[in-house]
Amino acid sequence: MVRGAHFAGAGRALLLLAAAAASFLPVAEPFCPRDDSLVKDISQMHQSSYGIDGFSHITVAGSLAHGMKEVEVWLQTIVPGGRTPIHRHSCEEVFVVLKGKGTLLLGSSTLKYPGQPQKIPIFQNSTFSVPVNDPHQVLNSDEHEDLQVLVIISRPPAKIFLYDDWSMPHTAAKLKFPFVWDEGCLPAPKDEL
Amino acid sequence: MVRGAHFAGAGRALLLLAAAAASFLPVAEPFCPRDDSLVKDISQMHQSSYGIDGFSHITVAGSLAHGMKEVEVWLQTIVPGGRTPIHRHSCEEVFVVLKGKGTLLLGSSTLKYPGQPQKIPIFQNSTFSVPVNDPHQVLNSDEHEDLQVLVIISRPPAKIFLYDDWSMPHTAAKLKFPFVWDEGCLPAPKDEL
Repeated sequence: MVRGAHFAGAGRALLLLAAAAASFLPVAEPFCPRDDSLVKDISQMHQSSYGIDGFSHITVAGSLAHGMKEVEVWLQTIVPGGRTPIHRHSCEEVFVVLKGKGTLLLGSSTLKYPGQPQKIPIFQNSTFSVPVNDPHQVLNSDEHEDLQVLVIISRPPAKIFLYDDWSMPHTAAKLKFPFVWDEGCLPAPKDEL
Repeated sequence: MVRGAHFAGAGRALLLLAAAAASFLPVAEPFCPRDDSLVKDISQMHQSSYGIDGFSHITVAGSLAHGMKEVEVWLQTIVPGGRTPIHRHSCEEVFVVLKGKGTLLLGSSTLKYPGQPQKIPIFQNSTFSVPVNDPHQVLNSDEHEDLQVLVIISRPPAKIFLYDDWSMPHTAAKLKFPFVWDEGCLPAPKDEL
């Protein structure tokens, strides 16, 4: 079950409501789930798809929401057939697969573009780390079961470059910063133009 | 179940065997479980108590065993009544409780010694991070069930200061470096005397 999908549905309904009421209500601040309590119940933490279909993300320990400076921990769930965007980053990233099975697609950082990715099976109770700057994508290749991973990154907040496909040149990949789950906590950088 | 206990038993038997055969065999190098494969099955990874009673440790993603530079991930299991040593470190540390329940004991870094620790319940599907340099201890306060945690640290390899008890001055805490699970991979520092 991806509860994020429900949240996304509720989010869209709220957005319509907000649009209808826009002239009567102050604009809501983006949501930043700050929580300074020492021990947190993960099942009670904020969960959302952040606009990515079939995806759910919880920031378990975050730089912006929980004051981490050197590491962040995420819990992510991907429905059958779902996938992360193709992306790269210069931080370290470790995955621990808690449930399900899937595929790590791993492109090259030495060619001008990611190229045909390696396809590496991942499975419950497996772990892998993504080589720094290698474009990659995680997909749930199972037909029935959710894929749930714990993700650890260094040097938060995440600075992620997104690719449309595996033939897009590295220089054309687009930095999305702050990333979707950090948008509520970190003001978007000012337009330099 | 703590499979580490079995490994420890087997280790002791091997040690006796090695001692008996010492004059006939070359001295074995300390074991360093290097593994450069991209996806690893955690159930097949090296697990040991490293001499800590009722404790089991797996380096899931390590600086010395797997080339991480910024983060490390450990999987640790503590039997009912078992506990980590009282210790502190200047790196960040995040725990995710996968199974069981227990107590986080948290001392002060502002007094001259840890003092009477706060006792904070931890439980399955909870998370907590240890404030940098605060002396702490994790114990399994359940009578029956193992406590299993995933631990994330920054700036590996771990530089850990150990306390005998909560009234030991911070200045008397003893640096153990390399820590027990890194000893096989990192040569002990030379005696400066």
